Amino acid sequence: MNVVSAQMAENIAGGSMIRRMFEAGNELKKKFGEEAVCDFSLGNPDLAPPPEVSGEFRLLESRSREPGSLGYMSNGGFSWALDKLAAWLGRQQKTELTRQEVMLSCGAAGALNSFFHTVLEPGDEVLAIAPYFVEYGFYAANHGGILKTVPCRKNDFGPDIEAVASAISPRTRALIVNSPNNPSGAVYSAEDLRRLAEVLDAGSRRHGRPIYLVADEPYRFLAYDGCEVPPVLPLSPHAVVVSSFSKNYGLAGERVGYIAISPLLEGRETLMAGLVLSNRTLGYVNPPVVGQYLMAAALGTSTDDALAIYARRRDMLAEILDEAGYEFMLPKGTFYFFPKAPGGDDLAFVERLKEHLILAVPGSGFGGPGYFRLSFAVPDAVIARSREGFARAIRG
Amino acid sequence: MNVVSAQMAENIAGGSMIRRMFEAGNELKKKFGEEAVCDFSLGNPDLAPPPEVSGEFRLLESRSREPGSLGYMSNGGFSWALDKLAAWLGRQQKTELTRQEVMLSCGAAGALNSFFHTVLEPGDEVLAIAPYFVEYGFYAANHGGILKTVPCRKNDFGPDIEAVASAISPRTRALIVNSPNNPSGAVYSAEDLRRLAEVLDAGSRRHGRPIYLVADEPYRFLAYDGCEVPPVLPLSPHAVVVSSFSKNYGLAGERVGYIAISPLLEGRETLMAGLVLSNRTLGYVNPPVVGQYLMAAALGTSTDDALAIYARRRDMLAEILDEAGYEFMLPKGTFYFFPKAPGGDDLAFVERLKEHLILAVPGSGFGGPGYFRLSFAVPDAVIARSREGFARAIRG
Repeated sequence: MNVVSAQMAENIAGGSMIRRMFEAGNELKKKFGEEAVCDFSLGNPDLAPPPEVSGEFRLLESRSREPGSLGYMSNGGFSWALDKLAAWLGRQQKTELTRQEVMLSCGAAGALNSFFHTVLEPGDEVLAIAPYFVEYGFYAANHGGILKTVPCRKNDFGPDIEAVASAISPRTRALIVNSPNNPSGAVYSAEDLRRLAEVLDAGSRRHGRPIYLVADEPYRFLAYDGCEVPPVLPLSPHAVVVSSFSKNYGLAGERVGYIAISPLLEGRETLMAGLVLSNRTLGYVNPPVVGQYLMAAALGTSTDDALAIYARRRDMLAEILDEAGYEFMLPKGTFYFFPKAPGGDDLAFVERLKEHLILAVPGSGFGGPGYFRLSFAVPDAVIARSREGFARAIRG
Repeated sequence: MNVVSAQMAENIAGGSMIRRMFEAGNELKKKFGEEAVCDFSLGNPDLAPPPEVSGEFRLLESRSREPGSLGYMSNGGFSWALDKLAAWLGRQQKTELTRQEVMLSCGAAGALNSFFHTVLEPGDEVLAIAPYFVEYGFYAANHGGILKTVPCRKNDFGPDIEAVASAISPRTRALIVNSPNNPSGAVYSAEDLRRLAEVLDAGSRRHGRPIYLVADEPYRFLAYDGCEVPPVLPLSPHAVVVSSFSKNYGLAGERVGYIAISPLLEGRETLMAGLVLSNRTLGYVNPPVVGQYLMAAALGTSTDDALAIYARRRDMLAEILDEAGYEFMLPKGTFYFFPKAPGGDDLAFVERLKEHLILAVPGSGFGGPGYFRLSFAVPDAVIARSREGFARAIRG
């Protein structure tokens, strides 16, 4: 008898490739020892949260003795947390924000799901620029939407504005951009973002309803060599920013993220009411209470040390890949390289890397076949000992 | 321009009645003072979490200094947390459980959404026994399902087995039972549950796929006068238990809940794989990391003190309602009364209560028109000072 739905059975089967890879990696570690394997497959930051977070736990020890201290609050989060977030985010986005324009959710993933649940009609299309974070496909499909990918610009993984323009249809409801980009490491320029917003706003006018520009920005703090990640909210009343504190403050497991909408959007009260209702009915109910305290403690603390550490690792790995003869773009942001797979078959090349005890993710997993992703959210020592493996793998 | 979908616009409009009530209550408090208003409208426990939870925060202070300490873990939760939960829940459900049969999620709401996302085909029906927790309707609809309500037994709010049997169709995928029941306070007997399971299993055989018996049990710890809440997992391989630590340990805001499936279900690995995948793709990603530590600290601590406090309040409120002449069933469990609305119109009577500075929720909000819900998760003093208001309201 069918214990799951037909669609779910298909999804489970589809997910099994990545799971098998993950399991194969674990077997490698068992066989040769953790220390022998170079695992570049995970996008999980390996730095500790800022010390302010630890300090906050001390305050929570006494706070949690109060009745109701860890109970429900408003579905969009505590007012004081929203006020603090709005002030911080307003400076970052060069837009005056109040708590009326921000909502806290269960990570950026919860914020994106709440957003799509709020705005998508059945069959609506969400555009994404490939290569892209594949979870977007689920987030759109969960709410009756269809993810439609648009190829990136060939030379630098930037957005191909013409391709986006010609992908817009009467069913287009949003374009999701992820800059700094997972997996490519690209950072979109202010000019590219401005032109994207223009193209979407023209589409909005043509088709009579907003086409949202959704910026998913968990890697905003990770831009190297002084590269600026331009703010998106000032570009259009239909711009929306989604992010989390998973990468910058190491709080991924605590599930705190947010969505901010433009104060210039006509009907923004309705959009926010829908977001808050979705936050409730999708089962997030409210952002985790402890996470909100931790976020407030961490907010505004410097991420310069983390940036310096990742920059150093980026340079180490770049030197190794370069020496071995890989073709790649030096990432402008994030902790990922996205090199070309020698020979062109990313699945086969990732298998070959594994023979040399290096774990990577095939680009096919990001809608980017022919490439593979390496995460340098790993200790320097892992990078250092990967030199031989990378060199041998490319020699075949 | 339509900033939200047509369905969402409808949902926002539909939700506005309860919001207006809530706002009206706040206005009352502003006008007459917090101390003058008796607010029986909220199902938010007003007790502090157990002291073990506060102690855990102290441990988290040092733990959070480790790299990755608050990062992602497996989508279903930490192995050690699942082991601990399985052992505790196995004793409660009189079923041998391992971590293979349990998954942690974002509260019971996250667990229910993950479950429906995993098992529902488009148009599948989920049965619920009215009066019921109205969020169930959203949880089913979020995943293409349709909630179909079945009336309860007239005398005691128990399940009407015949009504359930005749509601089963080829599209029926699950029956959700909530015992101890919000809002009625009913606790289903072992015999009633056994017969429900029988009826569903007969339907499963007839229609060739499992009809799940989903027990949503956040109020299990709150059963009075030694009343037993029978375990559900032993009743059928298609039984599923969902619950949270929101009510018993006061952790509602931290969003920790779980789902457990039967070790006897054929294909349980597939069901669990679907649940874990849904936990990920619906944006919960994993149960909040801090919440898992708090749960582990609280698990197994006694809830006897809380039970004694709520039992005392139940008796206080029963005496007041009885004296005033209300018609009601003494709740066997939960912290709710669900009396008949004098005159029969619950919306009108709740308005009248408000004139006497008493806040309640109309039964219509639970698919139970003609009744109103009173929560006694309030300080004794609130109950004590409500005597006059209840007496006057019923006199009209």
